[in-house]
Amino acid sequence: MSSSNLRVALIGSTGYTALEVARLLLTHPRADLVVATSRHDEGKPLSEIHPMLAGRCDVLLQPLDASEIAKAADVAMCCLPHGASAESVRELAEAGMRVIDFSADFRLSSVETYEHWYGVKHPWPERIGNVIYGMPEFFADEIKTADIVANPGCYPTSAIMPLAPLVQSGLIETNDIIVDSKSGVSGAGRSPKLGTLYCETNESIAAYAVGTHRHAPEMMDLVERISGTPIELMFTPHLTPMDRGILSTIYVKPSAKAGSVDAAVDSMMSLLRDTYSDAPYVHVVDHLPATKHVAGTNHVQMTVRHSGNRVVIVCAIDNLTKGASGAAVQNMNVMFGFPETDGLLV
Amino acid sequence: MSSSNLRVALIGSTGYTALEVARLLLTHPRADLVVATSRHDEGKPLSEIHPMLAGRCDVLLQPLDASEIAKAADVAMCCLPHGASAESVRELAEAGMRVIDFSADFRLSSVETYEHWYGVKHPWPERIGNVIYGMPEFFADEIKTADIVANPGCYPTSAIMPLAPLVQSGLIETNDIIVDSKSGVSGAGRSPKLGTLYCETNESIAAYAVGTHRHAPEMMDLVERISGTPIELMFTPHLTPMDRGILSTIYVKPSAKAGSVDAAVDSMMSLLRDTYSDAPYVHVVDHLPATKHVAGTNHVQMTVRHSGNRVVIVCAIDNLTKGASGAAVQNMNVMFGFPETDGLLV
Amino acid sequence: MSSSNLRVALIGSTGYTALEVARLLLTHPRADLVVATSRHDEGKPLSEIHPMLAGRCDVLLQPLDASEIAKAADVAMCCLPHGASAESVRELAEAGMRVIDFSADFRLSSVETYEHWYGVKHPWPERIGNVIYGMPEFFADEIKTADIVANPGCYPTSAIMPLAPLVQSGLIETNDIIVDSKSGVSGAGRSPKLGTLYCETNESIAAYAVGTHRHAPEMMDLVERISGTPIELMFTPHLTPMDRGILSTIYVKPSAKAGSVDAAVDSMMSLLRDTYSDAPYVHVVDHLPATKHVAGTNHVQMTVRHSGNRVVIVCAIDNLTKGASGAAVQNMNVMFGFPETDGLLV
Amino acid sequence: MSSSNLRVALIGSTGYTALEVARLLLTHPRADLVVATSRHDEGKPLSEIHPMLAGRCDVLLQPLDASEIAKAADVAMCCLPHGASAESVRELAEAGMRVIDFSADFRLSSVETYEHWYGVKHPWPERIGNVIYGMPEFFADEIKTADIVANPGCYPTSAIMPLAPLVQSGLIETNDIIVDSKSGVSGAGRSPKLGTLYCETNESIAAYAVGTHRHAPEMMDLVERISGTPIELMFTPHLTPMDRGILSTIYVKPSAKAGSVDAAVDSMMSLLRDTYSDAPYVHVVDHLPATKHVAGTNHVQMTVRHSGNRVVIVCAIDNLTKGASGAAVQNMNVMFGFPETDGLLV
Repeated sequence: MSSSNLRVALIGSTGYTALEVARLLLTHPRADLVVATSRHDEGKPLSEIHPMLAGRCDVLLQPLDASEIAKAADVAMCCLPHGASAESVRELAEAGMRVIDFSADFRLSSVETYEHWYGVKHPWPERIGNVIYGMPEFFADEIKTADIVANPGCYPTSAIMPLAPLVQSGLIETNDIIVDSKSGVSGAGRSPKLGTLYCETNESIAAYAVGTHRHAPEMMDLVERISGTPIELMFTPHLTPMDRGILSTIYVKPSAKAGSVDAAVDSMMSLLRDTYSDAPYVHVVDHLPATKHVAGTNHVQMTVRHSGNRVVIVCAIDNLTKGASGAAVQNMNVMFGFPETDGLLV
Repeated sequence: MSSSNLRVALIGSTGYTALEVARLLLTHPRADLVVATSRHDEGKPLSEIHPMLAGRCDVLLQPLDASEIAKAADVAMCCLPHGASAESVRELAEAGMRVIDFSADFRLSSVETYEHWYGVKHPWPERIGNVIYGMPEFFADEIKTADIVANPGCYPTSAIMPLAPLVQSGLIETNDIIVDSKSGVSGAGRSPKLGTLYCETNESIAAYAVGTHRHAPEMMDLVERISGTPIELMFTPHLTPMDRGILSTIYVKPSAKAGSVDAAVDSMMSLLRDTYSDAPYVHVVDHLPATKHVAGTNHVQMTVRHSGNRVVIVCAIDNLTKGASGAAVQNMNVMFGFPETDGLLV
Repeated sequence: MSSSNLRVALIGSTGYTALEVARLLLTHPRADLVVATSRHDEGKPLSEIHPMLAGRCDVLLQPLDASEIAKAADVAMCCLPHGASAESVRELAEAGMRVIDFSADFRLSSVETYEHWYGVKHPWPERIGNVIYGMPEFFADEIKTADIVANPGCYPTSAIMPLAPLVQSGLIETNDIIVDSKSGVSGAGRSPKLGTLYCETNESIAAYAVGTHRHAPEMMDLVERISGTPIELMFTPHLTPMDRGILSTIYVKPSAKAGSVDAAVDSMMSLLRDTYSDAPYVHVVDHLPATKHVAGTNHVQMTVRHSGNRVVIVCAIDNLTKGASGAAVQNMNVMFGFPETDGLLV
Repeated sequence: MSSSNLRVALIGSTGYTALEVARLLLTHPRADLVVATSRHDEGKPLSEIHPMLAGRCDVLLQPLDASEIAKAADVAMCCLPHGASAESVRELAEAGMRVIDFSADFRLSSVETYEHWYGVKHPWPERIGNVIYGMPEFFADEIKTADIVANPGCYPTSAIMPLAPLVQSGLIETNDIIVDSKSGVSGAGRSPKLGTLYCETNESIAAYAVGTHRHAPEMMDLVERISGTPIELMFTPHLTPMDRGILSTIYVKPSAKAGSVDAAVDSMMSLLRDTYSDAPYVHVVDHLPATKHVAGTNHVQMTVRHSGNRVVIVCAIDNLTKGASGAAVQNMNVMFGFPETDGLLV
């Protein structure tokens, strides 16, 4: 920990994304975790809530007081639930901090869409459409100067990264995209619930929220924002018996322009390789990616295959790292002019 | 074990489907396992190969001698690999036994399709098109008198059971069906291979054989055989970190005849409920099925949901039970006039 | 379901042991589940709480009214938490039912020991020392006529079964026994708690309740009750990332009488084989038992090995079956004169 | 990768410890992986064998030619099996490289003990007793100048670290120590074998090598070497359904000198805290350690508890990191004068 290092505040510290932020910052040469807040565990060491940090982090939990935190830290990583998050983001931003918001509160382009899918009144609607989406592969320039960054959702990351360039290129039909995603259980959070007990999810896979998951509009919104083209997309998430990882199997139809299915596969692989040639975390690979290939890392592996008259794209990320806390550290690096890989080498 | 009970021979005893046959027969009131064969472990107790059977089964492994086995047993459960299986099935059948074949050797309607997908010359092509497919929900009458039954593949069971009646009804478009399946690791067999080591598959999900899996033609063949209508289908299997179970998430488009997507969902649920009202193992449910709901049982759970402009069908089976050994016991029950649930109550 | 069958009431239906009772009764030829109670889910089908039962069990949840239940059922399986259980057991017994109690309320010989370890006043202390412990391998005669049976604890089952005969025989020293047990997560129940969330227990093993677990006094009490000899025993339970199963690794010292360590191992194996020669579920095996060898069954596998100057006993059971619901069905069979294996063949 | 960085050669690259070395070196600021050897996969990229490295490491596999490797690299991490390893270690050392040997070939003090337990003739017996054991917490000074370092075994690390200081202090009896260890499956290596298939080890825990595991003599040898006192120790390893981690539950008796059991626990905690106050990876904690608390890290968590008339020590490490590759990187750091935490911050 160096006195000239960037000072990071963790807002909402008890969940898995918060632990992942703390874990990554342990390896960051230019940033230190100096503040961590919690409503319920004030005064306790963060390492008591997350025993993995025992002996490695001596931050004590404190209440969320925006003006106090703004004195002690430079940037806030806000790991609060949607709805609640927007209020705290506002206070922290108004107290002068730069904020990376893990919630969905500032990801969508439209207040109406947000309120329809999240079922709450947005607490700060003026900023909707005016907060940058934290995917440095597409928005690095805006992130550099952003006061608030909306950190992407986990499932959307796995779908937007392959789909946005393909839609933009015109190689695929835009009205018939199916995203079948499989996520590890950490995506469901750390609050005790029947559905995430070990004996409920272990040795079992199941679809959930079929046709109703809130990440579908986020995928459509961002693909359109990046590519300039509106799309129709069906999304089915599945709870998979593993801690971490998302695998998205994406079914698309090559457009007439793409030629034969085999030619389309080749064009898509080339296009993705070109798009991500300078992205340190995105790997267009020949093998079929498994979530284990990216577990615990900020890396993305994707590939494209032919199947019948369709094209299948497979994309693997770690939901807690590239799907949440790793992306947040990557965004922080861009915001503060650090090398993009600081704290993310593992 | 009663002297009047049906005598069952297990051909190829070292794999997981063989163990599952032995496990189910322990509870069967009218059939006993009396013979078990193995090429490599002759003379050893079956319970040494499968320590779960210790103290519960005293059958010794013997070589595969069809005429000897035909004296000792009435029916053969043949758990050999494809290609090898057809030869043994022929010998056993010609020695006078009724045979249930777990391999793919007699499932398809066409020798050409078989030889194309399996890459071997079929050893008994005369019987192709002349062996009944062992799905009693559709072929009970033929199974009753069959000399040989082709026991269904695991993935095909999970796709054919919901799709065949829907295709037959005309409620869905037949040229744009996507089957995204997730299987437990036991489906990959018990031979030591890098890809099925614990540390390779645990905490990971991956697609495999994208566009090239042999169960795709089996699904298309059987749906056509049952419904009378040819279909186009894309199939993507995934290896999931669990012992048992298959979840198939099936994306279909309602036909014009089906009306709105919501109406289509209702019609499909009704149709499936009617189709399976007398089937003891098939349950059309309101909840989203998980593989754990059917693990270790011969039961099938399926449901239908609306998502965007598509309909999503979710179907869960246990790959080793309804997807293999349970179906075989069910077939045996039908062949020998036993109650269909004998040995399958758990 | 036959009208002459024994009618079983399940008291407290939402947990894993209750589901296991329901699962086993589905295969029982002489007993049917006819009543299931729940405080919170009155009126709902039991199969809604346990979707594994969908289409297989149509019992509706009802409140716990002892006199009503006594009219509808012959025997009660009481799956309530300790303390609460004793009150209901009393009501059910006084209403004329025979009761199998899954809680610890009637297992111990002494009210003082119970109140010390469980921290509650015993609601029916008169019956302490006057309720039979439901281990038919030792107490079958008393169980036949018992009005109330105290169903054994899961860890104690895995320790008492090997230790009681060895202590009785004088082959081991009685004051230096170490029981190191590893249990699947279902042993911790189905109430949502942080400690049993998937992401807390998956990919991790940990000791808990070191020196303070309530099953230690139960082990000592029962070994003494069976063998006539008091013992000193240390017990350490571990939470293991699996649904089911207990493996107990037990370290004992051969007594002077036992001779050399090798001779002691032989004598112990012989003694255990003799003790359990007629017990349908207890298997003294040569291999090292794994919990998978007994998963989902009522079976016990145990063996004895030499290590340094000690003897190591390894014993495997399924905590939900032989460690809870299977033992309860076995007790019910003994109480009502059924074959001991009814409902327990799998 | 900097041209002034230390150049590391990985000898034997296909296993899990090799992958873990590569993973850790990706984060090391002063060392780069520049050579990787494999007998079977010569010419292939290391990232093809370990797809987790895709896009992150471009080293190609080459044959093991000691003189060639000595030109290209400064230090060799030798991940070969015992017996085979000693020969290569000799060649590499004689070619002028400093070598960290992951095998057991140079860990023990006595050729006789090695040949008895490993069942092979030692290929370089002159060096037995003359190679330093790579546990920097005890041997940092010798490691600094060592030509060859014997990297510790995984189980021994989890036992020696708590036991050596306690034996040295005289607080425990030295002739009655029981080490009951639970390991993740990666400890069994990456060669396809029936016993480490997913479906054999998943959902199961079992003891193995009871009384015969080769790590028992290593524990006794090193505790004596560090403490100056010979000990008797019983060791039972268990295969646990998880990728990584070792939890050792160690049963010891306080010596007369230690006073009451409670006083002994306090003295032992103090002693361990003092011993490891400057060790960056060793944490004496109040909570009960779980393997998940140290998974993927080089950290050790240990604690001491009272149970009956015994004391229980619980120690958790990651078998691939502190139990193998992390310790190797730590040793390398000490050998080359780097900060001890380089490459090990996560």
